[in-house]
Amino acid sequence: MTLWARFRAEDGGTGFGVLQGSQLVEQQGEMFGATHATGRILAQHEYTLLSPCEPGKIVALWNNFHALAAKIGKAAPSHPLFFIKSGTSSAGTHEPIRRPAGYTGKIVFEGELGIVIGKPCRNLALTDAGRHIFGYTCVNDVTAHDILNENADFPQWARSKSFDTFGCLGPCIATDLNWSASSVVVRLDGVERQNYPLADMIFSPEELVSRISHDLTLLPGDVIACGTSIGAGSIKAGVSVEVSIAGVGALVNRLLPDGG
Amino acid sequence: MTLWARFRAEDGGTGFGVLQGSQLVEQQGEMFGATHATGRILAQHEYTLLSPCEPGKIVALWNNFHALAAKIGKAAPSHPLFFIKSGTSSAGTHEPIRRPAGYTGKIVFEGELGIVIGKPCRNLALTDAGRHIFGYTCVNDVTAHDILNENADFPQWARSKSFDTFGCLGPCIATDLNWSASSVVVRLDGVERQNYPLADMIFSPEELVSRISHDLTLLPGDVIACGTSIGAGSIKAGVSVEVSIAGVGALVNRLLPDGG
Repeated sequence: MTLWARFRAEDGGTGFGVLQGSQLVEQQGEMFGATHATGRILAQHEYTLLSPCEPGKIVALWNNFHALAAKIGKAAPSHPLFFIKSGTSSAGTHEPIRRPAGYTGKIVFEGELGIVIGKPCRNLALTDAGRHIFGYTCVNDVTAHDILNENADFPQWARSKSFDTFGCLGPCIATDLNWSASSVVVRLDGVERQNYPLADMIFSPEELVSRISHDLTLLPGDVIACGTSIGAGSIKAGVSVEVSIAGVGALVNRLLPDGG
Repeated sequence: MTLWARFRAEDGGTGFGVLQGSQLVEQQGEMFGATHATGRILAQHEYTLLSPCEPGKIVALWNNFHALAAKIGKAAPSHPLFFIKSGTSSAGTHEPIRRPAGYTGKIVFEGELGIVIGKPCRNLALTDAGRHIFGYTCVNDVTAHDILNENADFPQWARSKSFDTFGCLGPCIATDLNWSASSVVVRLDGVERQNYPLADMIFSPEELVSRISHDLTLLPGDVIACGTSIGAGSIKAGVSVEVSIAGVGALVNRLLPDGG
């Protein structure tokens, strides 16, 4: 298991590398291609983590957990149901979540597993999907809740979820994850709000990559946000949201206080 | 007015340049930044046009024309209603539209005006929007119609419209267009099916860029598809769809015959 991360150094320069404990072993090349160590090793105080990838798009699932489907009274879908969240919404761990200017409504967190694509994916067989997955990250799929159904004729999935900083990703990308034995845990200021097993997913990561690759082409760095389960809710100003998955780590983002 | 285009030359190499009549004056640099002529001029038989840009995302409008809103009995929205269509769906003029494998349902054309973004757009005032528009292109926003409402709980805008070749763009990008005096004309095998004035738009190009830039960050090469009006309909296998706007030119794409 390798933990890949992007970072900003104290001199303002950015780069990527491999986390080893609290140290970051800088690499050069292409994160999704050939890389080698530069020889530079940064101590914890010498780097700030960034979003671990810069997705062109975030393909985000709706209704992909049996427990949540049962709670909201919906059947399990026969094909993954998704919207596209702009890749420009991405933010790394410890970056603030910013309330959109002029929006006074509810802002909702959703803790999720994120699949990071490593190779172009087009019409992939299920058995080929795994090789196209670079790794896994934590996702906080943030929503401006009052916008989603503001218009009765047209649910605004893309708009309500694509604001800058509404696609929290990180802290890193874990190349291997025994996802079916893992859980997503979300804490708000330390208080647990979500804790659900990934084994409850309707479409597994490999199924998602294979099926979605028949619908659209996935590119390296794209993220599939696997959908959330029970317990998502609103974030108050100033509150810190931590999404953690054992083996990946903890993604922490605070909603800036109004005017912050 | 400059007509920018991307092309593939006979040797397989790709590039970009300026159309002058049937000739293509090759440029180097960044299409959305600083460019200069290479000195190479290609005659018509020496190049094949590609999609004029490679959008990271296509922001596509629903219900943006008064005539169509009246026809379907919907009020004009108070804010642009959009979904995100994957940029990987883009195809240039004369590229075939490909039926998704396993999909036997209706495939629908929609002729539209496309806005090509030239500079990063974030929270732009209306008066600044125009300077961020690089130019205009024709769009055929193709839809796998039976997928859109296949699931009663979740309209699949992104999925039904993001298949490879479902985002036809071209033939070029016109840097200036008196859009309010222009019409979108669509012909199927030469028979007119759409002909509507762009002056009937609910949100103008400048309003779209300004408003949407408050929702998500637009990047150079991104396309806003301004929505369609009356007359969109299905495409039979083998039929050629031509979307034309005077001053931009004609975008022509044929739906491959089944098995083609």
